[in-house]
Amino acid sequence: MHRLRKPYLLFLGDVQDKLTAKTAFGLKDWCADDVVGEWSLPGCSITLGLERLSPAAAAQRGAGSIIVGIAPTGGKLPPHWIAELKAAADAGLDVVSGLHTRLTSFPELVQAAARRGVRLIDVRHSDAAFGAASGRKRGGKRVLTVGTDCALGKKYTALALAKNLRSRGITATFRATGQTGIMICGEGIAIDAVIADFLAGAAEQLSPDNAADHWDVIEGQGSLFHPAYAGVTLGLLHGSQPDAIVLCHDPQRRTIDEYPDFPLPALQVVIDDYLRAGRLTNAAIRCVGLSINSSSLSDADCSAYFARLTAELGLPVCDPVRTGVDALAEALLAP
Amino acid sequence: MHRLRKPYLLFLGDVQDKLTAKTAFGLKDWCADDVVGEWSLPGCSITLGLERLSPAAAAQRGAGSIIVGIAPTGGKLPPHWIAELKAAADAGLDVVSGLHTRLTSFPELVQAAARRGVRLIDVRHSDAAFGAASGRKRGGKRVLTVGTDCALGKKYTALALAKNLRSRGITATFRATGQTGIMICGEGIAIDAVIADFLAGAAEQLSPDNAADHWDVIEGQGSLFHPAYAGVTLGLLHGSQPDAIVLCHDPQRRTIDEYPDFPLPALQVVIDDYLRAGRLTNAAIRCVGLSINSSSLSDADCSAYFARLTAELGLPVCDPVRTGVDALAEALLAP
Repeated sequence: MHRLRKPYLLFLGDVQDKLTAKTAFGLKDWCADDVVGEWSLPGCSITLGLERLSPAAAAQRGAGSIIVGIAPTGGKLPPHWIAELKAAADAGLDVVSGLHTRLTSFPELVQAAARRGVRLIDVRHSDAAFGAASGRKRGGKRVLTVGTDCALGKKYTALALAKNLRSRGITATFRATGQTGIMICGEGIAIDAVIADFLAGAAEQLSPDNAADHWDVIEGQGSLFHPAYAGVTLGLLHGSQPDAIVLCHDPQRRTIDEYPDFPLPALQVVIDDYLRAGRLTNAAIRCVGLSINSSSLSDADCSAYFARLTAELGLPVCDPVRTGVDALAEALLAP
Repeated sequence: MHRLRKPYLLFLGDVQDKLTAKTAFGLKDWCADDVVGEWSLPGCSITLGLERLSPAAAAQRGAGSIIVGIAPTGGKLPPHWIAELKAAADAGLDVVSGLHTRLTSFPELVQAAARRGVRLIDVRHSDAAFGAASGRKRGGKRVLTVGTDCALGKKYTALALAKNLRSRGITATFRATGQTGIMICGEGIAIDAVIADFLAGAAEQLSPDNAADHWDVIEGQGSLFHPAYAGVTLGLLHGSQPDAIVLCHDPQRRTIDEYPDFPLPALQVVIDDYLRAGRLTNAAIRCVGLSINSSSLSDADCSAYFARLTAELGLPVCDPVRTGVDALAEALLAP
């Protein structure tokens, strides 16, 4: 389990576009209170609109980590960023990266971290040892966001739902299963980086026993209908033992992204298949609603689409950005 | 992908019982032509009935690897075996182990292997890099053994079926997904040791494009109904894209082994669920029969049980040990 030291200094390198810095923008949106400022190299043309602080200045303000909030194509860490990350380690900051390239593959960074007693944390990787799942029912309640596909709002929906529940006085914890989620909440497990044998076991460890009225809101991964990642999705579903699922979908998506030969099934089929699979470890699992990424729809089209889904599926439908997630929270808490 | 150098010298350490040496006995049964002899330490009280050869003598006879054919409780490699394995490396043999303890964790063994230019191969681990699955349909035909649970005959059934097909003049390849299978056929991928993201991708790589009339007979792992391992099973199923499955079952098994709260579903439900899941990557998937571990049944009870299953499920039923797998091969090859 990764556990990060907050607050953060967000590092932008020398990137030129906001999409590449999407992780940093996500952190600014979802954990602004845990961010002391931003830092970048000469040539960087974007800003998060936060105070510019050098690693040393950020450390003086109490920062615990510098976060590489960047996802360049290919997932590689540009070697010319290392000097600045080494300076951050020298200043006493943990260095946190979500890239494929491991921070520990740079000897000068490893030496600097060892010298200063700080950590190099690659949140995309998962070097912790997990056990096999026990299948034992745990105390507390759990809701898992699932999807027709990858990258259509499972993390965003889980974050919004956890926040909404807390605003109602419910004790609720967002449980991160991917790198950005881990950075946002400061802990979690990159579930797709776990050794396959321990997938469900890691998911069990991620949402441990809790008080009977506590909700874990678990970030889903992948899709049961994805030819590459359905195994990850199923292991996470089984280990999470969710009492409830929320189905996330984007109406523009007709096939699995980048897999044009894999059409998405009808939403009722999707729900039925998730519930059938989830019953193995929680016989009482139910679907409490849909979270739709409706950014491609006009207001009128969105209303018509939501009305049609509600009628067809008999479930609340919302878009976390457009409508908020009150409908999901209410369905979750309904007796 | 692990690729081992045959023939083998089978090493028994100083074990006292046949069950612990079950891997070595399996190798003797399934690839006797690839075994030059056995070797053990003073105090070992069992034998495979093969010629005793020291590592040096085995190397002179052309052996390529010494195989640690032992599975002690806990999966640990006893440190007092290392001197003998080092002698094997010094003699020019690759050292192959299926234990949890990595051979590479013993510096003197690493040094000996480097000096002599031989390999230390931990078949339980999977350090190779795999890509994400493509979902692309591959040439050739594939059959996957699946199970109601773990450890009830998936490897044995696949080995028997591949052998049976070859005896009919069909080109067929056993594809190993676990440590013993890898040792038997000399190559394969320990699929449960793969990083979860690459599960289906590794399964694709294991059974690559082939001639239209070639059969890959793929060793299944885990069970869709296992609370810890279903993710592995699903990833292997999706990446294998099987045209056919054979369901393996043991009538004594009422619940998942060591998970008494997880009853096994009716066999028709099991078959339907495997086919539903498998259709994602192969719409034409079908179940061609059942492979039953009937060792607990009398001849009369076995006949009655097989007749009942055949009537209920409308599928051929066999036991690879008791009846052979002709019925499965014929169903597989039926037009």
